[in-house]
Amino acid sequence: MWTNTLSPRFAETDALGHINNTVLPVWFEDSRTPIFELFCPGMDTNDWHLIIAKIDVEFLAEIYFGKLVEIRTYMIKIGNSSMVVGHEAWQEGIMVAKGSAVMVHFDHTAKASKPIPKDVREILEKHMHT
Amino acid sequence: MWTNTLSPRFAETDALGHINNTVLPVWFEDSRTPIFELFCPGMDTNDWHLIIAKIDVEFLAEIYFGKLVEIRTYMIKIGNSSMVVGHEAWQEGIMVAKGSAVMVHFDHTAKASKPIPKDVREILEKHMHT
Amino acid sequence: MWTNTLSPRFAETDALGHINNTVLPVWFEDSRTPIFELFCPGMDTNDWHLIIAKIDVEFLAEIYFGKLVEIRTYMIKIGNSSMVVGHEAWQEGIMVAKGSAVMVHFDHTAKASKPIPKDVREILEKHMHT
Amino acid sequence: MWTNTLSPRFAETDALGHINNTVLPVWFEDSRTPIFELFCPGMDTNDWHLIIAKIDVEFLAEIYFGKLVEIRTYMIKIGNSSMVVGHEAWQEGIMVAKGSAVMVHFDHTAKASKPIPKDVREILEKHMHT
Repeated sequence: MWTNTLSPRFAETDALGHINNTVLPVWFEDSRTPIFELFCPGMDTNDWHLIIAKIDVEFLAEIYFGKLVEIRTYMIKIGNSSMVVGHEAWQEGIMVAKGSAVMVHFDHTAKASKPIPKDVREILEKHMHT
Repeated sequence: MWTNTLSPRFAETDALGHINNTVLPVWFEDSRTPIFELFCPGMDTNDWHLIIAKIDVEFLAEIYFGKLVEIRTYMIKIGNSSMVVGHEAWQEGIMVAKGSAVMVHFDHTAKASKPIPKDVREILEKHMHT
Repeated sequence: MWTNTLSPRFAETDALGHINNTVLPVWFEDSRTPIFELFCPGMDTNDWHLIIAKIDVEFLAEIYFGKLVEIRTYMIKIGNSSMVVGHEAWQEGIMVAKGSAVMVHFDHTAKASKPIPKDVREILEKHMHT
Repeated sequence: MWTNTLSPRFAETDALGHINNTVLPVWFEDSRTPIFELFCPGMDTNDWHLIIAKIDVEFLAEIYFGKLVEIRTYMIKIGNSSMVVGHEAWQEGIMVAKGSAVMVHFDHTAKASKPIPKDVREILEKHMHT
């Protein structure tokens, strides 16, 4: 599991007084940074090997400004070239949102998926949800 | 079906050269504005009767800056107090993303769901996906 | 003058109940699209000739969700290679914000500014603030 | 001086390959959190005493994804009811952007500015730019 602790931003609140729902995909993407680093060492966006196929988010409780949020990220499934990443957002001991992202190891030149490299797979497997 | 035509913003692109995946939930929320108006006449955010329970987005093709996008929004399911809204994003004749949002008619004071009013339901039914 | 009419998005509100201040630079950038098109025909972000040097925004009144906003954009100054663009945001007959952006015609390969082409300049001059 | 170290988010990049200019106001607002806490203990957005009057940002260098950014925030001027906050964004030893924000201590009920309290002023004075 990877953890990412963040402080909600004022600009991320909405008129209902809490964090807007559209912010969660941003926080979750941000929390996939360790996975980006595994696939794209050096984080060179001109040499990027991932695409995103699907995301979903469930909103479980109101998320407050002024209190830290911890995003817990883990692997749900590791396929040949694709994978499912899970996310949970916790605030003050409550799971306030959860979701997942389907990502594909992708060759942007060939416009085709490609197998997840063995060394990357071994690291991902250590982060499988148990 | 409701349609919302929008012009992608430069700030919505990312380093891969296309629209970032986190933008779709924003566009889809924006496209639910006609539904907000049905439930919350006058759009007074101090008198708001909706919460969002779940969203998902499938990314089907790259979305380009500099070309209009049409968001098509419709009802997939209308329950007693909850509903499922469907969204499709089209650009140059191609469906580039689709998704859904589960919304609940909600009493923020009582912290409980409440039935969708009959007059609102009748309008929503005219927008059922066929 | 160029005009850009937009409908504030729910995600753009904040916990104070109005449009968050950080949204104005996004709306203003979006409103410079006609200028991007002049300098970068085809809007190819791989062949981009502009950089931004400075922005400022004055917040004059609360900006409400649920009411259209018109952004008026015009040229304040056209230099040899740089220019100052002015923006005003109007809502229900009130100027709610104004600002400017300093942009530079730029050669990303040579990492140097370059003169504004004569044909572009002639069009820009028609949009000078009077 | 207050410091805020942040990791640029993928969603904050744009098609030119760097952090989009509209992100800086968001980072700078986020970096004023310690000032929000001084004026609004408990960070209750229903009991908020600040408004923003003006922001500006100068863009000094490209800001890269994949490298930490440090925002340095300090007081430039402390008036009777208003103040000017300064911000600098640093990445890998280079000042990549700087800006300021004019904020006003404000009574949202009376719709009028009010003097900065003595105890808050004393703390702010310790953060004056030298």
